[in-house]
Amino acid sequence: MIVLMKRNATQEDVGQVTAWIESAGYKPHVSEGVERTIIGAIGSDQGRSLLKSIAFMQGVERIVPLLKPYKLAGREFHENDTVVRVGDVEIGGSEGGASCSQFTVIAGPCSIESEEQMMECGYIAKKAGAMLLRGGAFKPRTSPYSFQGMGEEGLKILKNVGEKMGMPVVTEIMDTKDIDLIEEYSDMFQIGARNVQNFALLKRIGQSHKPVLLKRGLMTTIEELLMSAEYILAEGNTQVILCERGIRTFETATRNTLDISAVPVIKELTHLPVIIDPSHAAGHAKYILPLTRAAVAVGAHGAIIEIHPEPEKALSDGPQSLRPEQFYRLMDEVRILHDAMKNGIGNLL
Amino acid sequence: MIVLMKRNATQEDVGQVTAWIESAGYKPHVSEGVERTIIGAIGSDQGRSLLKSIAFMQGVERIVPLLKPYKLAGREFHENDTVVRVGDVEIGGSEGGASCSQFTVIAGPCSIESEEQMMECGYIAKKAGAMLLRGGAFKPRTSPYSFQGMGEEGLKILKNVGEKMGMPVVTEIMDTKDIDLIEEYSDMFQIGARNVQNFALLKRIGQSHKPVLLKRGLMTTIEELLMSAEYILAEGNTQVILCERGIRTFETATRNTLDISAVPVIKELTHLPVIIDPSHAAGHAKYILPLTRAAVAVGAHGAIIEIHPEPEKALSDGPQSLRPEQFYRLMDEVRILHDAMKNGIGNLL
Amino acid sequence: MIVLMKRNATQEDVGQVTAWIESAGYKPHVSEGVERTIIGAIGSDQGRSLLKSIAFMQGVERIVPLLKPYKLAGREFHENDTVVRVGDVEIGGSEGGASCSQFTVIAGPCSIESEEQMMECGYIAKKAGAMLLRGGAFKPRTSPYSFQGMGEEGLKILKNVGEKMGMPVVTEIMDTKDIDLIEEYSDMFQIGARNVQNFALLKRIGQSHKPVLLKRGLMTTIEELLMSAEYILAEGNTQVILCERGIRTFETATRNTLDISAVPVIKELTHLPVIIDPSHAAGHAKYILPLTRAAVAVGAHGAIIEIHPEPEKALSDGPQSLRPEQFYRLMDEVRILHDAMKNGIGNLL
Amino acid sequence: MIVLMKRNATQEDVGQVTAWIESAGYKPHVSEGVERTIIGAIGSDQGRSLLKSIAFMQGVERIVPLLKPYKLAGREFHENDTVVRVGDVEIGGSEGGASCSQFTVIAGPCSIESEEQMMECGYIAKKAGAMLLRGGAFKPRTSPYSFQGMGEEGLKILKNVGEKMGMPVVTEIMDTKDIDLIEEYSDMFQIGARNVQNFALLKRIGQSHKPVLLKRGLMTTIEELLMSAEYILAEGNTQVILCERGIRTFETATRNTLDISAVPVIKELTHLPVIIDPSHAAGHAKYILPLTRAAVAVGAHGAIIEIHPEPEKALSDGPQSLRPEQFYRLMDEVRILHDAMKNGIGNLL
Repeated sequence: MIVLMKRNATQEDVGQVTAWIESAGYKPHVSEGVERTIIGAIGSDQGRSLLKSIAFMQGVERIVPLLKPYKLAGREFHENDTVVRVGDVEIGGSEGGASCSQFTVIAGPCSIESEEQMMECGYIAKKAGAMLLRGGAFKPRTSPYSFQGMGEEGLKILKNVGEKMGMPVVTEIMDTKDIDLIEEYSDMFQIGARNVQNFALLKRIGQSHKPVLLKRGLMTTIEELLMSAEYILAEGNTQVILCERGIRTFETATRNTLDISAVPVIKELTHLPVIIDPSHAAGHAKYILPLTRAAVAVGAHGAIIEIHPEPEKALSDGPQSLRPEQFYRLMDEVRILHDAMKNGIGNLL
Repeated sequence: MIVLMKRNATQEDVGQVTAWIESAGYKPHVSEGVERTIIGAIGSDQGRSLLKSIAFMQGVERIVPLLKPYKLAGREFHENDTVVRVGDVEIGGSEGGASCSQFTVIAGPCSIESEEQMMECGYIAKKAGAMLLRGGAFKPRTSPYSFQGMGEEGLKILKNVGEKMGMPVVTEIMDTKDIDLIEEYSDMFQIGARNVQNFALLKRIGQSHKPVLLKRGLMTTIEELLMSAEYILAEGNTQVILCERGIRTFETATRNTLDISAVPVIKELTHLPVIIDPSHAAGHAKYILPLTRAAVAVGAHGAIIEIHPEPEKALSDGPQSLRPEQFYRLMDEVRILHDAMKNGIGNLL
Repeated sequence: MIVLMKRNATQEDVGQVTAWIESAGYKPHVSEGVERTIIGAIGSDQGRSLLKSIAFMQGVERIVPLLKPYKLAGREFHENDTVVRVGDVEIGGSEGGASCSQFTVIAGPCSIESEEQMMECGYIAKKAGAMLLRGGAFKPRTSPYSFQGMGEEGLKILKNVGEKMGMPVVTEIMDTKDIDLIEEYSDMFQIGARNVQNFALLKRIGQSHKPVLLKRGLMTTIEELLMSAEYILAEGNTQVILCERGIRTFETATRNTLDISAVPVIKELTHLPVIIDPSHAAGHAKYILPLTRAAVAVGAHGAIIEIHPEPEKALSDGPQSLRPEQFYRLMDEVRILHDAMKNGIGNLL
Repeated sequence: MIVLMKRNATQEDVGQVTAWIESAGYKPHVSEGVERTIIGAIGSDQGRSLLKSIAFMQGVERIVPLLKPYKLAGREFHENDTVVRVGDVEIGGSEGGASCSQFTVIAGPCSIESEEQMMECGYIAKKAGAMLLRGGAFKPRTSPYSFQGMGEEGLKILKNVGEKMGMPVVTEIMDTKDIDLIEEYSDMFQIGARNVQNFALLKRIGQSHKPVLLKRGLMTTIEELLMSAEYILAEGNTQVILCERGIRTFETATRNTLDISAVPVIKELTHLPVIIDPSHAAGHAKYILPLTRAAVAVGAHGAIIEIHPEPEKALSDGPQSLRPEQFYRLMDEVRILHDAMKNGIGNLL
């Protein structure tokens, strides 16, 4: 950490800061500039929170933290790409390069609504070439009067359809009390945008051995997303996939603003795989195809796409769900672009 | 709801929309304009989610929802101000007018750190004239390596200090599994910014009879905040206080951006009391006094302020905690301004 | 426009609103719902600003404008894609489809620094296959102490290098008084993000016949961007190219947040071409390649890229400028992906 | 500036950075930590832009600028409050304390519409106790089809009404070519939010001797606002008043989000006066009174308020304009609160 002293700071002020740094177990390093004194605090990371108090000592203008707050999630701790396995499916890999060895598509309806609807979705997903099946049984809805999901009955349907199709399944968890239940039925936990900083849930999931799909929140910085992943990793669960799903900005033409740059940033900072959720970012089916193409081209490890046999009858997220023929087209486009990435761009020197 | 048809929509398109509106239990109302057709859907609220599907029917440009999505939280349902009682303390009232009958200050440390620290805080709060005591036992921290709170031991200390000082206490709940525990020790639940859309928690708290302090999230719109309150109200708990604590914007000079306008907006839309948390909004002690003055002047029902006997030794939020003498000054300023509001401005015609 | 009356609005209130609508030259259309009355105002667009006043008439809850505020920029007015010609180079086209017939790259340094530097940039741009040359002679810098550009001397260098390379050139204009000067030396005007709502400049440029590259501002909604284009179109200049260059959000990992979704949204709403500026969005050279790939895949008509023979010696924007070998690689990637888009995806049914 | 090296940076990397720092005229200061090397660059400010290039040298993780980029606008350069004089009216002062010696209200219509309307506004403003008169003759409108202002005819009216009422006047300038014209008629220039980074305009205004009201942009950071003020100061014009007028955020309940915290932040960082524009921030008359009270309480030096004799007939900004009786009430509230600030809070120890 660096401490920038005010121009009029006294020698006594400097002395008190260095004393504090020492008492926190760090070594102070004073640099006297032409106009200001700058003090570095050198040492390992354990006294970090004590150092923050320096911000309001006499004569201090501000402090600048230099190191990243996460460890296990960072490339410095774990240089090579983590490949997460969900059943037989692998997600991740390529060491941060442009071209990923696979582009894994997760597909399914927003909500599980009935055995029939879920079977149709499973059939469409399988036929199109998706690798994993999604479906929500516990739904986070802004309104208490909206459909809240089928609960355990939905989980049973999901597991059943996944088995019939030979596809691993993923579903959202919203409450620590549901962990055992969801662990029984699902191959991967999904933590939604609104629970990305539900730290009790993150810790509890960290004690499971099932992989986790962790979505970035509407308001979460990339650093905070990595800190939320760190909560899971720190408890021993290393199978975490990150998901960019749009952030909240002033623009209202789309439901949220897809932060496509988050993909190269995340691939640089962390070894964990990163996928894109264009459905929630855009909020409208008509923008999903171009955004999924962009996800392939930018180097994401995959995408999660909402589909529905009849979007106009969906109990949730209808407007952003793809019809079967739209999804078939999307998977064709994904294949063409991913081939160009692997065979074309991957072969450039 | 209003449906705006595209300029080139056909009579058949219009017919399909009106048929859908009827099948959802609404009455369609077609207005043919010079350039476009507009269709209103008239009826009660139950088919609302079905109507959303119209957004992507043939020939439809967009749909415009007209009614507010909340009911119990709205002034239309409950015109007069709700006054929430926490122990002997009342928060709220004034029918949306400029001058509130009281300006209730909640004070205490970010984290409960020890019996001694909490007793000092209680003494300072009481001496200065605060009405409620706050203190965190379960702490939502961005980093898993930061102090996570004292847990039940902290709750015991909090309750004990509150009783000695004759002040009701409030503490944060982060997980549905802790409800019984916190209900035993605390006079009011606090739901933090990061859990404002933890719907499982909201529902469970709605089944309690203890009052709730519900903080706005960093990226929650005012409408979403009211929808989160609606979750609690819909379960039967009507004792909800809303809290504006700063939203996330591009500006980094303060930790968050205090949305002071939220106070008159919230007072217009809802009957629930609204208070301000300048500590988390500003993130630095030096801005707390002016922002608290602004809270009084804008017509908030109160404020929640972080204090600490020695902020530089605080285990969390030190930089934004007021020292005792700063807090005494703050309470003096609050009294002077609140008197001017009540006696001066309240007496204007 | 739609007027939503309050629940307790009287017949008299409704009468006053309908009278006002009529006096503004519109036809009122009253729909009485179960809980509310809704009033539509039907007519042509000329009284629009008069209608806004209805927002604060007695008994009115809110008004909802239904029509888009732009005309000439919209697809309703001009259905087919506009193709802008700059010298021999064409930008635009494909009727909003996934695959554009060309992906036009504009390249060059942020600032023109010397004849030698500009010649090197021109050579690199030409060799790599870029079609247009950029270079700033008047620089909008946050600080008055930063390099402000070479002015007319720079313009001469730019024109000279463009002629030698056989590439049309584009440069930024910041002040109405410089129009004649820049018109003399440049083949296209660039209006920068900070001047996107400099309406005096927009109007004046609208009277020129040279094409315009109009950058979206950091804070500009897509609708506002189209309104700024409308200013130029309304004066008679129809040769406008729009450019998404990143918007300001809470995320600080990149300089700005590239709003990649803006491309399909803009292609839907307007006939004008849209390109991407990944250099300013990302602010760091290491993210430019993946973001440019995303620009091709999402269907943009081109990109504008900052290059420099020695970025570490650049007088402005060094960190986001590509070195020659990075730019050659970028152009190879662009060609591979654009071929996949045209030949692969374009051939899907 | 501080340079943070990567964990795997070599001695050679460090050597190249220190060599670069020396060649830019600074003194390098190397601190070897447990995990990383940190290098400070010590010296005066002239090589600042050269240092930025270090960001992408081999082995460098990132650079952290430590000093503020503005000088003349900062308290370090000019410790005491600047008091700006417009005619006989003074704005500013109190050395950053809570209570300003005066709270200066500027009032008038958004647009000058006619001699009669302006006279009425002048009469209302004068009667209520406002000190300066505002009125727009050149209007920055999002739409080219909206009323663009009366131009010089409006300026004549404004000057005439100001003289009759004995009030100095202020009006907006949008283009460098209008400077002489506006200088002739107006006692103060206003630079609007959309021109806050129109650097050509800032420089030109800096050469005038008339005071300037500089509005913060919708997405301008406080630091950028001070840099824009620096442009004016650097040209020799020291009479600059800053104005917070709401920033753009995700919240749509108000037109913009008033950043009330900007007032104490600005008072800490700069000696220039700062006022609040609640009219543009809120966008609706019903919120102007509470927000103006908050402006007084937070310690602003004044406010600029839109008024209109008949807001429903205003050619622009009707919904946010106060009626005469609302403005009289506002001025009464301002007086009561400002007295409490001066006599009550100013007398606290």
